[in-house]
Parts: sequence; C-alpha cells; structure tokens
Amino acid sequence: MKILIANRGEIAVRIIRAAHEMNIETVAVYAKAEEDALHVKLADEAYCIGEKHSSESYLNMENILMSAVHSGANLVHPGYGFLSENPTFRKLLRECSIGFIGPSEETMLQMGDKSMAKSLAKKAEVPVVPGSDGEVHSLEEAKTAAETIGYPLLIKASSGGGGKGIRIVEKEEDLKGAYLGAKKEALANFGEDGVYMERYLKNPRHIEFQILRDQHGNTIHLFERDCSLQRRKQKVLEEAPSPKLSETLRKNMGEAAVRLAEASDYLGAGTIEFLVDHEENFYFMEMNTRIQVEHPVTEMITGVDLIKEQIRIALGHPLSVTQEELKLTGHAIECRINAEDPDNGFMPSPGLITFLHFPSGKDIRVDSGCYQGLRILPYYDAMVAKLIVHGKNREEAILKMQSALYELSIEGIVTNQSYQEDLLRESFFQSGEYHTLSLDSFQRGTVDGAV
Amino acid sequence: MKILIANRGEIAVRIIRAAHEMNIETVAVYAKAEEDALHVKLADEAYCIGEKHSSESYLNMENILMSAVHSGANLVHPGYGFLSENPTFRKLLRECSIGFIGPSEETMLQMGDKSMAKSLAKKAEVPVVPGSDGEVHSLEEAKTAAETIGYPLLIKASSGGGGKGIRIVEKEEDLKGAYLGAKKEALANFGEDGVYMERYLKNPRHIEFQILRDQHGNTIHLFERDCSLQRRKQKVLEEAPSPKLSETLRKNMGEAAVRLAEASDYLGAGTIEFLVDHEENFYFMEMNTRIQVEHPVTEMITGVDLIKEQIRIALGHPLSVTQEELKLTGHAIECRINAEDPDNGFMPSPGLITFLHFPSGKDIRVDSGCYQGLRILPYYDAMVAKLIVHGKNREEAILKMQSALYELSIEGIVTNQSYQEDLLRESFFQSGEYHTLSLDSFQRGTVDGAV
Repeated sequence: MKILIANRGEIAVRIIRAAHEMNIETVAVYAKAEEDALHVKLADEAYCIGEKHSSESYLNMENILMSAVHSGANLVHPGYGFLSENPTFRKLLRECSIGFIGPSEETMLQMGDKSMAKSLAKKAEVPVVPGSDGEVHSLEEAKTAAETIGYPLLIKASSGGGGKGIRIVEKEEDLKGAYLGAKKEALANFGEDGVYMERYLKNPRHIEFQILRDQHGNTIHLFERDCSLQRRKQKVLEEAPSPKLSETLRKNMGEAAVRLAEASDYLGAGTIEFLVDHEENFYFMEMNTRIQVEHPVTEMITGVDLIKEQIRIALGHPLSVTQEELKLTGHAIECRINAEDPDNGFMPSPGLITFLHFPSGKDIRVDSGCYQGLRILPYYDAMVAKLIVHGKNREEAILKMQSALYELSIEGIVTNQSYQEDLLRESFFQSGEYHTLSLDSFQRGTVDGAV
Repeated sequence: MKILIANRGEIAVRIIRAAHEMNIETVAVYAKAEEDALHVKLADEAYCIGEKHSSESYLNMENILMSAVHSGANLVHPGYGFLSENPTFRKLLRECSIGFIGPSEETMLQMGDKSMAKSLAKKAEVPVVPGSDGEVHSLEEAKTAAETIGYPLLIKASSGGGGKGIRIVEKEEDLKGAYLGAKKEALANFGEDGVYMERYLKNPRHIEFQILRDQHGNTIHLFERDCSLQRRKQKVLEEAPSPKLSETLRKNMGEAAVRLAEASDYLGAGTIEFLVDHEENFYFMEMNTRIQVEHPVTEMITGVDLIKEQIRIALGHPLSVTQEELKLTGHAIECRINAEDPDNGFMPSPGLITFLHFPSGKDIRVDSGCYQGLRILPYYDAMVAKLIVHGKNREEAILKMQSALYELSIEGIVTNQSYQEDLLRESFFQSGEYHTLSLDSFQRGTVDGAV
C-alpha cells in the first residue's frame, strides 16, 4: 500500500507519520524550491512537480498525477488547501484508477456551491441563516422577504466582498433607504446592482463539527471546535470543546451535522461550520470536504486519529469508533504560529530559521514542517507550526499553552508568538466571551492593559 | 510559590514545565559547564552551584541549600539520581524550613536499607524472594536454609558484585561443594567469605508499580511498568502495561504495592519494584522513593501528571484521582536515547549536537534537555532524550515507536538509536516474551537475522 501526499508543510508531515504508523509507504511531491523540506525527507519517495510557485507545483494536477502513476501510489491524500476540494483533480485520479482520500466529486460539487449546500441543509432540517430566496429584485420583494427574515437584517451585494455594499437594517422604516442605497453602492463598486438579504447575526461564534462517515454508512460527529478567534477571516486560535456551548446545543448541533453528512452521502472526514448567536440559535454556514488545519484539537479531546480514520475509510474499513464510544475528555487549544510580524501589520516574514526549539512534554504537541536551518519561503502560506495542548479542563489547557508559548523559541524569522501570548492574557479570551469579530477590534497594548 | 529543582537535564526541564503550568515559579541550579543548558534557560532564576563534576555541583548539598535559601524557594524537587534519595539533604532542607518533594527521612532510610525494606515488606504481607536470614555461617545452617528456600537456589557473597562469588545450586547434592566454593571465591575476590542464600529466579521480569500517597493517607497505584529490558542493569526500553501480566496478577501486585506504601507511611510518588517468575509469583525487590526516568509511560496510560501530583502532595493537597477513577488506557513505550556507541561497546559519545530533529505529533512525546547547538558533556549521564509513544494497543504503540525512531535525527554525536530500532524488530520484543537477561544475550545482527 502506498499513499501520495499532494501537499506540503506540516500537513504533509502529519499524513506521512500516520501512514508510516499504519505500515503504509509514502510518496512526497515538492516544488523545486523545497528539496530540503521535512516532508521530502520523511517520505519514502519524493517527486519534484514543478517550479516554486504553487500554481506550477502544488496545484499542478498533471504533474501530481504523473507522480502518482509513476510511483504506483494506490491513494492520494490531498491535505487541506491546494487541490483538496477540487472535483476535477478527483475525477482525473479516478480515471487513472487511483483512490482519493475524501468524498466523491458529486459531494464536493454540491458542498462547494453555497446555495446548493444550503438547500441540502434545509432538506436535512439543518437550520440555515434565514434569507431571501436568491436576489431581491424590487422593494416589494424586499419587504416580503423582510417579513420572513425578521430584523435586524443585512442587505448584501451579490457580487460583494470586503464589506462593500453591505447594509444593516435595524427596523422596517429603514428598509427602503437601505435597499436603494445598497443597490447603488453595489453598482458603483461591482458594476451590477444585484442584492440579497439575510438575517443579521450580531457577534456570532464560529462553531464547527467534525464528522466522519465510512463506506458502510456509519456516521459520527466528534464534537465541536470553536474557531471564532479569526483575524481577517483567518483562524488564529482554536479550542475544543467550545468554552460556551450547552450540552443541549452540542447534542442538537451534533445531530444536525450527522444529518447533513448523511444527506450529502458524505465519505471521509469533513467539517460542518455553523454560526451560533447569543440566543443559542445555530445556522449552517458551509461544509469543508477535507481535513482542517485545526483537526488536532479534536484528536486531543477524543483520542481518535483523524488522518488514520481518513485512510481507513478510503480503504473500505469501518470507523474504528462508534458515537456511543466517543467521550469528550478535557480541553484542547491550538495556536497557529505564523511567520508574520504582528507589530508591522502582520507582514509575512520569510527567512532562515537560525534557531528552533519546540516545547514538548505531557499533552503538548507541535505539528510543523520546520527544523533549525530550514528557510521559510515567501511562496506559500505563513504558518510554520501548530502548537496544541490538552488539559484536564480549560483552565489547565490555558496554563499549558502559556507555558508552551513561553518555551517556544524561533529565531531568524519574526512570528506571531507574542501576539498569541497577549491574546491568551486577555480577559475576553480567559472568560471565553468572544465571537468572530473579537480579534478585529483587539489592539495589543490597549485592551485590558495587555503589554 | 517557588520550587528549586536540584537536578539537571530532561528531568529538570520536565519539572520546570509542570511548575509553570501550575503558576509556580522555578529556580534552576547548574554546574559551571552548563550555563547554556535548557533547564537554565527555561527556569525563572538560575544559580551556579559549583564546578562541572557532579560531586562539586549537583551533589553539593551546601551550595544547593544556599541557592534555595537565597532564592526564597518554598520547595525543592530533587528529580531522580543525585540527592533524590539522600536523607541528609532532606534533613538539611527541613532544618532550613524548606519543603522537600518526597517522603520523610525515616521512610527514605527504611527503604534505602535493603534488609529493613524486606522486613517491612514481609510485615505488610508483600512476598519477598525466599532466602536465608542474613549470612549463612556453616554448612549445617546452609542445609537448614535450603530446606525452606527450595531448589534451585543461589549462594551469593555478601560483599559481592559483578557476578563474582555467585553459585547456582540445582539440587541438594551440590550444596556442599557450592557453599564451600562460594566462600572461597568470596574470600579471594572481596577479602571476606560471608555468603547468604536466596531462591534462584530463572529469567524473571522486572515489573514495577507506580504509587502515590498524599498527606491525608490516600494511597493509589497507577498500574505497572515493565522494565525487564536492561543492558547491564540499565533500563533501555520500558512499557506500560506489561505485555505479559494477567489481570489477576496486576490486581494482586497493585494491592501489595499499596499495602507497602501504607506500611512505610509513604509520602509522594514512589515505585515498588518486583521480580515476577514464570509461575506468576512476584517478589518485592526494592522501593525507589522518587520519580523514575520511565514515569511518562505511566502518565500516558493513566492521563495523570505525576510531577504535578508530587507537587500537589507536597503542598498538602489530596490526590487528584482515586483508585476507582483510574483507568488503564492503551499502551505506552519509552525508548531511552543515549549518547553512546552501540557498535563500540556502548562507549559514551559526548560532543556537539550539530543537527537535531525530534519527532512530534499525535501521542508522541519527547522529554529532553537538548537542542541543536548544545554540547553533550562527558561529566553526566549519557541520556539525551526519552522518546515516548502511546497507542490504542501494543501493536499500534510499536508501529508508532518505529515511525518515531525513523524520524528522529541527531547529528554530531553517536547515539543508540539504531540499537533501539533493531531491538524493536526482534521477535522476542514483538512477542513480549522477554526477561531481565534478554538484552545481555542480544547480539545485533545475529539474532533473528536483524541487521
């Protein structure tokens, strides 16, 4: 048995480790600039698949396919990002009779399309954010939609992005002005004035459920991860379980996640992302049909090796654990350590790692593709390590993460280590009272008197 | 609260991590040659306590005491080795009103004396290896003793060591010759002819039980570790649970360990070492009144942080777990990685670590005081790292350790990494059918066709 890992960095290393522990051979692929990468060193074979830029290498379907064929790989693990949610890549592999560790093309296509995914969620009785049925073409339509949606609501440009063309409408009297204003702004910014409406969730939490489904139709969820702490939509720190989720809500959301996984005839490991408001309402946002960066926090609270389960499922084995056997134990936190300068607008900070010391010890885990002497390249994402800890409870996990961050030492490049340290000290973090916008307003050195 | 760690290397680092995770300040002490040691870097304060040789530094009671007083430490953690089982050191600390993380002087003295420890074990109805009551002064006495002990038995020089002056006696007819021969050999080798007798255990296993006892009289055992794999009495690889221990024997030995801990009015973490023969008889050997090198395998199968428990106990807190709550989960293995050359008689191999990569990931732990660029000094023991893994079962743990050893990379010094790799491939290891003498006859490249 042989698996080709169509990825790089820490996730490639993570997958190689799991495969080796299952007595499965591994094939790495790498861009020209990455001959010295850790995943290349650890794999049993390695193939160069193109030039340094991802578009020419890690996104180069043909070259990856050729490496898979040439190496005789039985399966391809796509990791996250790159080609992991690309149905064409999956189709090409199928045509070459090479297995793919992930769901079918149909499921990928369905879940990759936001409106198709939402309809499926509705069919599976999974709540979605109430909204207009597509675009709203007149003020009359807007008024009718608003009656179902309720206030406050949002009017958003269909072609929007970056916050442009978004209006919050608090009450009916403001609807007309907001509708017309949003259309005008949409036209001015995007050249077309299509808008749609949905309920405005104030300061929601981003809570996602890990699911697994095998070829025998067994489906389980592995509880939630709270990923509300995001900086410009990029997750910064994740924890499991959520510091603020009642047992009832956990149960209801978990069941909803399982329903959706079944409705989409899902296969493998997937994540169902929800928004949760202050009244404990939850709404389906989207499904990621691949392993997530933050999967280790789930592994720590359940003991389940998600990568091994992915491989087992692809090989046709049943899940190694049932829903009833799963127990949520303790609390896990992950901090993403990025090569970026928090004091300089989070500018990427590639360069040579001149000294590297990772913390270790009881219930401390570091997933990384780095070693001392490696050069962090500017062509790929800036994450250099994931620091993950497990404590008996959240308090112990926080202390453990603080101690681990204190011990972590990376020289030669600037990282966001100090930003994470400051974040852990903040009262909104310590209390668990945070939401998806908390980090956007978090200013180090000003809030809570943090240094 | 402040703890001084009267030790160096990985165990000092381990204790510093635990203390920091409990919001306790730490004080390191170090020999002159070790200014750059990891434990010095990680502690909140550090004091130089003397010259490079241990006798002048890590065994220098006065200087350590002065550092404790000067730093205002409330407690001293002795780690293992050095002063950890020294009642005088403990007494001096007490006289300075500094707490000691370990049992009382009385317990240390009692357990440090083999014959006193054995009598206590007998009182607590814990089996000991049947033997003569001290020295045997005549052939008549030897015959009487032999009747109680049974055959085969050993005659050993009281002042013996290194296998000199030891005779195995298979049957009564051979007793006279062996007795006289042993006396003669003892006289020739050690200048005195005192001998004693005990039952000969053929190929026993070394199985030890971890115990914890608090100031409130709560006593628990945390199951066993199998430490039979020793090279010249030095443990090489440890696992928990033992691959060959029945549930009944585990229960009986655990209860015996608890009885002995209670009988000695023990305080803190301790280890009760037993020999187990092929008929599932077990015999008390000795008690170590300190933390052991191999404690992490117990942490992995129980989830209990033994160092934190030690600290909690010293602070007067009750144990954080009861016997009933403890569950043995999965299987853990530890490999000791030493700076020694297995192809050259295990000669110590100090020197500069020019490259270092430790494996990490799910259920992999490395306890070490090393980093890339550190110089391994010839003055201290040769252990540079402990590689510890946890699997759902023994099979998974073995695969995980093999994968971790494959990934481990230490350059600049020679280590026993390849020896451990060979050992893991051996059928006697894979089957779990090994005993305390297995490694003495293990020749790499000849047994089992291992390379």
